[in-house]
Amino acid sequence: MNKRAILLFSSPDRPGLVHAITGHILEKGGNIVELEQFVEKSHGHFFMRIVWEIKDQNACALDLDKQLEPLSSKLQGTFKTYCSDERDRLALFCSDTLHCLGEILLQHSEGLLPVDIPLIISNSERGRALAEKFQIPFKMISTTDDVKTYEEEQLKILQENRIDFIGLARYMKILSTNFVEKYQGRIINIHHSFLPSFIGRKPYHEAYERGVKIIGATSHFVIPELDLGPIIEQDVLRISHAFDVDDLIAAGREVEKKVFLFALKKYVERKLMIHQGRVIVFQ
Amino acid sequence: MNKRAILLFSSPDRPGLVHAITGHILEKGGNIVELEQFVEKSHGHFFMRIVWEIKDQNACALDLDKQLEPLSSKLQGTFKTYCSDERDRLALFCSDTLHCLGEILLQHSEGLLPVDIPLIISNSERGRALAEKFQIPFKMISTTDDVKTYEEEQLKILQENRIDFIGLARYMKILSTNFVEKYQGRIINIHHSFLPSFIGRKPYHEAYERGVKIIGATSHFVIPELDLGPIIEQDVLRISHAFDVDDLIAAGREVEKKVFLFALKKYVERKLMIHQGRVIVFQ
Amino acid sequence: MNKRAILLFSSPDRPGLVHAITGHILEKGGNIVELEQFVEKSHGHFFMRIVWEIKDQNACALDLDKQLEPLSSKLQGTFKTYCSDERDRLALFCSDTLHCLGEILLQHSEGLLPVDIPLIISNSERGRALAEKFQIPFKMISTTDDVKTYEEEQLKILQENRIDFIGLARYMKILSTNFVEKYQGRIINIHHSFLPSFIGRKPYHEAYERGVKIIGATSHFVIPELDLGPIIEQDVLRISHAFDVDDLIAAGREVEKKVFLFALKKYVERKLMIHQGRVIVFQ
Amino acid sequence: MNKRAILLFSSPDRPGLVHAITGHILEKGGNIVELEQFVEKSHGHFFMRIVWEIKDQNACALDLDKQLEPLSSKLQGTFKTYCSDERDRLALFCSDTLHCLGEILLQHSEGLLPVDIPLIISNSERGRALAEKFQIPFKMISTTDDVKTYEEEQLKILQENRIDFIGLARYMKILSTNFVEKYQGRIINIHHSFLPSFIGRKPYHEAYERGVKIIGATSHFVIPELDLGPIIEQDVLRISHAFDVDDLIAAGREVEKKVFLFALKKYVERKLMIHQGRVIVFQ
Repeated sequence: MNKRAILLFSSPDRPGLVHAITGHILEKGGNIVELEQFVEKSHGHFFMRIVWEIKDQNACALDLDKQLEPLSSKLQGTFKTYCSDERDRLALFCSDTLHCLGEILLQHSEGLLPVDIPLIISNSERGRALAEKFQIPFKMISTTDDVKTYEEEQLKILQENRIDFIGLARYMKILSTNFVEKYQGRIINIHHSFLPSFIGRKPYHEAYERGVKIIGATSHFVIPELDLGPIIEQDVLRISHAFDVDDLIAAGREVEKKVFLFALKKYVERKLMIHQGRVIVFQ
Repeated sequence: MNKRAILLFSSPDRPGLVHAITGHILEKGGNIVELEQFVEKSHGHFFMRIVWEIKDQNACALDLDKQLEPLSSKLQGTFKTYCSDERDRLALFCSDTLHCLGEILLQHSEGLLPVDIPLIISNSERGRALAEKFQIPFKMISTTDDVKTYEEEQLKILQENRIDFIGLARYMKILSTNFVEKYQGRIINIHHSFLPSFIGRKPYHEAYERGVKIIGATSHFVIPELDLGPIIEQDVLRISHAFDVDDLIAAGREVEKKVFLFALKKYVERKLMIHQGRVIVFQ
Repeated sequence: MNKRAILLFSSPDRPGLVHAITGHILEKGGNIVELEQFVEKSHGHFFMRIVWEIKDQNACALDLDKQLEPLSSKLQGTFKTYCSDERDRLALFCSDTLHCLGEILLQHSEGLLPVDIPLIISNSERGRALAEKFQIPFKMISTTDDVKTYEEEQLKILQENRIDFIGLARYMKILSTNFVEKYQGRIINIHHSFLPSFIGRKPYHEAYERGVKIIGATSHFVIPELDLGPIIEQDVLRISHAFDVDDLIAAGREVEKKVFLFALKKYVERKLMIHQGRVIVFQ
Repeated sequence: MNKRAILLFSSPDRPGLVHAITGHILEKGGNIVELEQFVEKSHGHFFMRIVWEIKDQNACALDLDKQLEPLSSKLQGTFKTYCSDERDRLALFCSDTLHCLGEILLQHSEGLLPVDIPLIISNSERGRALAEKFQIPFKMISTTDDVKTYEEEQLKILQENRIDFIGLARYMKILSTNFVEKYQGRIINIHHSFLPSFIGRKPYHEAYERGVKIIGATSHFVIPELDLGPIIEQDVLRISHAFDVDDLIAAGREVEKKVFLFALKKYVERKLMIHQGRVIVFQ
């Protein structure tokens, strides 16, 4: 497959944006293969994702920003460019509950999540055997001590491994504002409820008590405020009165896995844009 | 079809309950056609719904309680009995938003909701034309004045019409504790969100702001606390970032109709039992 | 709201299509509000739907084709243009089973299906009362006689009413090839199964016999071959072993209504394109 | 947890069945914890699954049939009894496509599928690495030669491993009638379409050609006729015109895994009964 360039563009809406951008790509000899745009009506904001095959196969990573420079100074929007042969480096965080970790590792090992996973960080030894099964380095960093100390250690090892983004695979510890800001828009969490219902640590217990007839899971970008980050994906599962808390936990596992995987995939495919706390998810 | 008796029974669980009840029915010549039971594990509570064809076709309504008396004094549980030829009398409440009302009237007119609807009460004139289309008496009672006054008028007309239960078809006014207690366990509301998310008047606006990827509707029994009553049914609908508030409202209509109809049907089929704020929904 | 123009365009894919079309609209002072494109990979075919606000509010219906003429001779694709204030004229066909008809009439009466419905044609008297409830002319044309005779009568009345497209709302009679060709790509049927399963008259009976765990409905364009036309929309419903045929029929009603309504809406919104027996459904 | 006995019972329906069976269990000191019954209306057939805690913890496997003997001679139905501490021995068959195999092995390794898996049989070397990851014996038996020869080898190794039932995890070879009959009602297949649509080897290609809007997967018991066995479970996934065949295959993987796992779980929980080509699935 030829190398492809991907552009995520956003700006206040005005006539001529699609025309200008497609014209620029055409001029450089690019052949557009995907184009999706969206105009958010209440604020009149324009979003576009566009993918094209590039002519000069050596040019992609280095020259893309330069090539688009005349356009970006003219249009004054937000440009993010990617080359299809760049692979993100993902660090997975986990604790004792391992099904989301297992799902990602299995899909990754089958070549279905095009990303490098150089590192798993956990605050429990429980995931080590699983990590070894898939030959991914596993680093246990205890989180019982002072948050500043252990987060420094986490951040150091993330940096050493040149991590691009982080997946919290049922990691049961709240990240500090300092940590979150260092990876702003690059930390994806899976929460085991249909947010905004049941924020916090025991969503299945609360769902049981409330007697809901459907449970769910939510994958979202992490912001300093707990479980309030921009939502990437949600899915649900019908339950009945006959489900006790353990049944909910067991049934919810499958939804959590699916939702988390979906979010990570969309991220690596450059299909997510955040705008005013909401996520545009290109198809 | 032969007349059928329906029993809803609940009690603390102990050995022999199914055997005792089925034995009693057998002895009276009844032929069991449906039996569903459920043991709630955390408190060990037993629930059963059982339907049987009765031998003496004249006996149902009058004698059922008497027939079961020896059993109920022995088993010390909660007995509720119904005869299949009794039809409940439903009053529908509405305001300006009419799709839930329209759905119920349409289904009812096609014979799909086996219930009598002698009365629609509204705090707006908007539903009158729809009510007349289906030839259901429509009573406009303004709710701008003092709550005590207008609820007295509502309660009086409900009583005159010998109403068994009430369906709030997007009725946009909070019922007083006094009103709710008079029809305890007999008022069913449709709320236009996936509770417990987005309690209150503007759920679709809040859903938009939060950027959820799925919206829903909830039908629940009404208790004095707003939107906290026992949940009968919920359903959801996948949406995308491209839905603005009006799109959410339009899409949500169909889910609301479906969920509300489901709840009313289950009620008239005697398939709902409330236990500690949760609803057992028999199939 | 300003008048809008809608263009459905398709052609073999090649570089520059989006740029050329958006350029033309820009030049005429149009402001693009929706744009969706799709490249079918196996044959390299390009499809686009584009909506723009037109500058000269008098120009739409008359001049649109003329305006686009230079473009269409240059691009050599298929152009279909619409003006947002044109309303299609829909004829509904029905027989004895009326829930799909009722759904469309109810939605239409609430302003949710922006179309004119000047005519219902039925081969049974059963729908008359429903049609009158919504004040839509109802024409009973018996289909027991010779097909050529009754179809001539149907075609004549369709023409007199200047019908643009036809919705078969559970109309239980096969249209002749002659009839279908007269309204090619303009007849939408609702079939009460998840096609291609259970073609023909008794899908719920066959579904029961086969013991499927999910049933469905399909809305499709009609072609001379029974139930083989291009599929617009499908939806499904989970069932269990406890559903007998009557339960399937009852449960299926709601899916049929939903699927049929969806298809008609997409049609009037100019969001459907047919290509090699498959339907592109714009969002 | 105490040992439990499970009874699957079926017979022509008649009054007194529930009473008789629950009475017998009560008499033996059993405490019923689950009871689900179903009367198939068209033929008047009765099905029941009942689970009870047994008093004498040594008695289960050995004495259960003996204990129930007086009852079974009286009731003349079909009795199948199980003890909760018996674990079935499952053999998995696979070929080149490994996601269903991987899912089962992962779930099994996490203790979520209470079964022993002493053997994987494949007609390709491709699954060996995966099998070794989970330390399950892997036996490659080529199926290029004469069917009688290789099936004899398969049957021999199944017998040596005392296999109770077989899961065909995308095994791409048709079993002979002789083989199927040896494991009648004990072979579960996953088929990658929503049966009865798209029987055979290339369902995703056919689904693409037909332009369906929803794809699915089906798990069923195997009978000699290809893809016509009694259906245990189905699930579906909404797709759009933008999915090409490869997209369908990728998306379908997740549905296949889910449906296959569900079917195997229901089997080991003794929740499946086959009746006239249809499967009763207890909850």
